Amino acid sequence: MAIKLIGFAQSPTTRRVVLVLNELGIPYELESVTEIQTIKTEEFITKKHPFGKVPVLCDGDHVVNESRAICRYLVSKYQKDSKTVLYPDDVHKASLVEQYISYELSYFDPPLSKVLYQEIYAKRRGEPTDEAVVKQSLEELSKTLDIYEKILKDKDYLNGEYSLADLFHLPCAHIVYNATEHSDIFDSRPNVKRWLKNLRERDAYKKTYAE
Amino acid sequence: MAIKLIGFAQSPTTRRVVLVLNELGIPYELESVTEIQTIKTEEFITKKHPFGKVPVLCDGDHVVNESRAICRYLVSKYQKDSKTVLYPDDVHKASLVEQYISYELSYFDPPLSKVLYQEIYAKRRGEPTDEAVVKQSLEELSKTLDIYEKILKDKDYLNGEYSLADLFHLPCAHIVYNATEHSDIFDSRPNVKRWLKNLRERDAYKKTYAE
Repeated sequence: MAIKLIGFAQSPTTRRVVLVLNELGIPYELESVTEIQTIKTEEFITKKHPFGKVPVLCDGDHVVNESRAICRYLVSKYQKDSKTVLYPDDVHKASLVEQYISYELSYFDPPLSKVLYQEIYAKRRGEPTDEAVVKQSLEELSKTLDIYEKILKDKDYLNGEYSLADLFHLPCAHIVYNATEHSDIFDSRPNVKRWLKNLRERDAYKKTYAE
Repeated sequence: MAIKLIGFAQSPTTRRVVLVLNELGIPYELESVTEIQTIKTEEFITKKHPFGKVPVLCDGDHVVNESRAICRYLVSKYQKDSKTVLYPDDVHKASLVEQYISYELSYFDPPLSKVLYQEIYAKRRGEPTDEAVVKQSLEELSKTLDIYEKILKDKDYLNGEYSLADLFHLPCAHIVYNATEHSDIFDSRPNVKRWLKNLRERDAYKKTYAE
């Protein structure tokens, strides 16, 4: 049975999974959610996601939800059939990938998501932008990116070689970079700028964002 | 060379790693940090953690930081020598463990950490407790626990068998349960209450919290 991905086509969490599918060359079918009500039904909550969220992956009868969990599942099951390595076999290398995955979750995503919410989602909902939150989040993100600038010195990717850690950063960064006026927070740091350029030049990125 | 764990002995993130060390029966030495300045030096930042944080694990010459990354590293490297299975080999079972790990990160930890900050850490620093934040976080946590109550129906642990997902929940829950007046938010839900009791009855828990 084919792999089916249920999600909001343009949401960063769905894009995160699509990036992995494209990196590993896994054929899939996207079941695009257009109405929020679809994922709040009793049936969806019982069978797909108890919190009523997307993305959800259906691999035959096996259902997995939460973007990062889905990405890890796809790597565990299908990386062996692909030329691309997103997660190294070596336990020591893998532990450093895990470290960068944790930096994304702890120091990169929280301020970035707040900017994203205030400048994109709040606007779409007609809510006023909380400028104080944006300012504070950008300051926090700047501190994180100052550290990334050092980490990325003389490296193409966070752990030297491309990995799931780099990929996890991309979907939210992509939106803030492309759909707000804050691209300079990345571009003003040469190593961060080069890193994001490396990520955007990958075939899987081009395919994902052309879809 | 022995395993050395650098951390604040009683912090939930350090406890998270100690729980894994005790579950897997791995001998280790704790280098207890008592002064925050210790982890903000140039040397610590260069050699141990670029963000100046703990815990940090030194396994011989190999350094890993961030509690969840350290836990995953310990499991990948040492679980094979232990009777305890924290992460299943089966790719489908593992994907569900990943799902619950993501629930902890997305829906359980954020409100719980806010309560923890307001009621424990802010008080210690002499800052006033923001009651509105506590109230909102408890409401959010209640919604999460309503869903956990359903997930845990007829199950001893989130994924049926004990796993890293259960373990990741414990350190923050332990503090809110024991050191605030909000234990009832867990105890008022019979399945959640039973789950936490199961976790606290494990030898590794008793050993960790006796240390």
